[in-house]
Amino acid sequence: MGKIILRNITVDGRPSDIRIEGSRIAAIRPHGEDFTVPEGFEVADCSGKVAVPGFVNAHTHAAMSLLRGIGEDMALKDWLDHIWAIESHLDAPFIYHSGKVAALEMIKTGTTAFNDMYWHSYMARKAADETGLGCLVSYTFLDNFDQKTAERQKEECLALTEAVGSWGERTKFAISVHSVYTVSEPLILWATEHARKRGLRIHIHVSETEREVQDCKAAHGGLSPVEYLDSLGVLGPDVIAAHTLWLSGKDVEILGSRGVSCVHNINSNLKLASGYNFLWKELTEAGANVCLGTDGCASSNNLDMLEAMKTCAITQKAWRKDPSALPLESLLKMATVNGGKALGLKTGRIEEGWDADIQIVDTDSTYFISPAPFLANFIYSAHSDSIVSLISGGEFVMRDRKVPGEEEIRRAGRECLSLIEKFR
Amino acid sequence: MGKIILRNITVDGRPSDIRIEGSRIAAIRPHGEDFTVPEGFEVADCSGKVAVPGFVNAHTHAAMSLLRGIGEDMALKDWLDHIWAIESHLDAPFIYHSGKVAALEMIKTGTTAFNDMYWHSYMARKAADETGLGCLVSYTFLDNFDQKTAERQKEECLALTEAVGSWGERTKFAISVHSVYTVSEPLILWATEHARKRGLRIHIHVSETEREVQDCKAAHGGLSPVEYLDSLGVLGPDVIAAHTLWLSGKDVEILGSRGVSCVHNINSNLKLASGYNFLWKELTEAGANVCLGTDGCASSNNLDMLEAMKTCAITQKAWRKDPSALPLESLLKMATVNGGKALGLKTGRIEEGWDADIQIVDTDSTYFISPAPFLANFIYSAHSDSIVSLISGGEFVMRDRKVPGEEEIRRAGRECLSLIEKFR
Repeated sequence: MGKIILRNITVDGRPSDIRIEGSRIAAIRPHGEDFTVPEGFEVADCSGKVAVPGFVNAHTHAAMSLLRGIGEDMALKDWLDHIWAIESHLDAPFIYHSGKVAALEMIKTGTTAFNDMYWHSYMARKAADETGLGCLVSYTFLDNFDQKTAERQKEECLALTEAVGSWGERTKFAISVHSVYTVSEPLILWATEHARKRGLRIHIHVSETEREVQDCKAAHGGLSPVEYLDSLGVLGPDVIAAHTLWLSGKDVEILGSRGVSCVHNINSNLKLASGYNFLWKELTEAGANVCLGTDGCASSNNLDMLEAMKTCAITQKAWRKDPSALPLESLLKMATVNGGKALGLKTGRIEEGWDADIQIVDTDSTYFISPAPFLANFIYSAHSDSIVSLISGGEFVMRDRKVPGEEEIRRAGRECLSLIEKFR
Repeated sequence: MGKIILRNITVDGRPSDIRIEGSRIAAIRPHGEDFTVPEGFEVADCSGKVAVPGFVNAHTHAAMSLLRGIGEDMALKDWLDHIWAIESHLDAPFIYHSGKVAALEMIKTGTTAFNDMYWHSYMARKAADETGLGCLVSYTFLDNFDQKTAERQKEECLALTEAVGSWGERTKFAISVHSVYTVSEPLILWATEHARKRGLRIHIHVSETEREVQDCKAAHGGLSPVEYLDSLGVLGPDVIAAHTLWLSGKDVEILGSRGVSCVHNINSNLKLASGYNFLWKELTEAGANVCLGTDGCASSNNLDMLEAMKTCAITQKAWRKDPSALPLESLLKMATVNGGKALGLKTGRIEEGWDADIQIVDTDSTYFISPAPFLANFIYSAHSDSIVSLISGGEFVMRDRKVPGEEEIRRAGRECLSLIEKFR
């Protein structure tokens, strides 16, 4: 486990030395102060570099990295039909290798933990574990209102829940309910009860499109997806609701009072033409934990949280007609510590006792020649190639833009593409 | 001048060899065909790389690169007041070094030509020329309705117009009229006549904000900025209108019938909360030449055309509620050949006889492991660090991400920041 000293790295504007022990940040001292280097520690010189908490991607489908761009220019409904037809053929090895490609991409773009929803979740966890990332990986319920499917999924879920007993501290297990339009009520109730009994988080798509809300109201006596889920007792602080884009004032109130984690996925929402009217401010004020995600590569096309942050902020400014909307500090919290809270990981701050999830950012480029603060330059000007090294769970997972085994990950990923070509 | 063979580079999906002579593409042949290498030619192996036309940034203020992020979270009106207070202190050396930083950033992000509006334009041209970029650099009129200023500017403009006689074929001179809200009518008329007499293009901000349109209507008997400029005889195919965001149906008709080049600057428009309702489709159908720009770094925060393309497309899809809005090929044209047409440069296509402005893109990253076409991966997934080398006007201006003299450009840029600090 990690025995690293980051020497002369800027933390909150101050040159500092960081001691990492195991998976945690053991100490932070002003650089130059007496700072003992215990035996066996590696000292990494970080002069001219800035420490940023690793990003937490609070909603994605890692295994879709190899389906990147597969349904260009389609509306969500058609896109889902297209994707599902292909997904029905995907097997565990595909999901493993696709998960590895996703993990590689997340590492290259500064993400140290992610919240995943997919099938064969054991494989996504394996990919995360092998590359050193933290994750919340879930068994996904999606019965399309078919009772036989529901029964089979319950059995699978029970078996998997037993099997994950040995998972590590940073690779966690959860329960996903795909959505109110794809999962039957009895199964939603069973999944929720199962999750609560085992202390597992619940991950669900909620109010992603206007149509989902309309359909839900038609099917459930005028209740919105948020109201419907609340009526079933699903919503609580252990729930991660992806999208929550089309919300009424009452929906916001419910999500806030239940302390739900709401994940905005701006690039996916824009690209699929789902919308951009995310109520960040209203949800936060109501008490919800607002996070940021990329969604899967088939819709957002990449897993870049830095890109998502910029798009998120400037879109908020524009649709609210308020250039001061979504200040930088709040944006960073959405992409780090709030996501950590959602996933149940102590990540997202460069502070003693927190997980050692640290982006090491090089400021020697045109993007940082500016009178603006570091965070403005990092988020609004720079790109992920400014993130030169990354520490996840106390270990280097990237050094000088190199990730161990990356050529092999890409090679295996390319080979898997032939499987998709067969079923298109 | 350029004597380069790009061997085994993918052009429109086909492995090809490109011969560059002087500033032009002399020949393109399928790779493997007999292809004589004349004496004195450098052969660059481009196996596994893809050729993309260099981007044309059709509206920017290069010298604002050192004002990056200086007015975070301000509305356009306040932002302009803030910026102008600082700009009044900026001198020619500052503008030169800031222009060099901008040129460096444009090269690193695949841009080979740009359309600039600023003061001390001779310095911006010098920066472009020294780094190898094509440009349209203008004398900028902005009299704030003061007659003395107008007279002084006319004299300056006449002197500069004489001085530019010796400028190169790819560094062109133009006339900028800042906007209808900052330039008096007699000066607009004088500038237009001066430009037309000399065969110079006219560059102007038009209908950037809703307020600009309202104010113009109030000041000019109900005429919109487009209608007002048309009533003065300003609009024509030699006019580059930046923004054209708040347009009526009649405005679109006028801009189309006059063949005006209309430049969308999505990141700036979003960040300053100006809007996103750009009528790309309607303007194109009406006959306008629709281009893409980044605006200056003080508002958009960077000069990255690849980033601008993605934001442009996904914002169009979302606000039109149509995921098929703005197909990839049209988007690429906006960022390349249409910009070339606006600037009067034969750039934007990888074809024989066209300017040798070529991005060399490396596809060996996770972003290109996908069943989607190259262009989808390049625009929606990848970042500028995939652009490994760049040829502008027949010469390499970047090789393997290295730009000659870049350390010195950054050092000089950093030194200039102290000037701003004095006047904040």
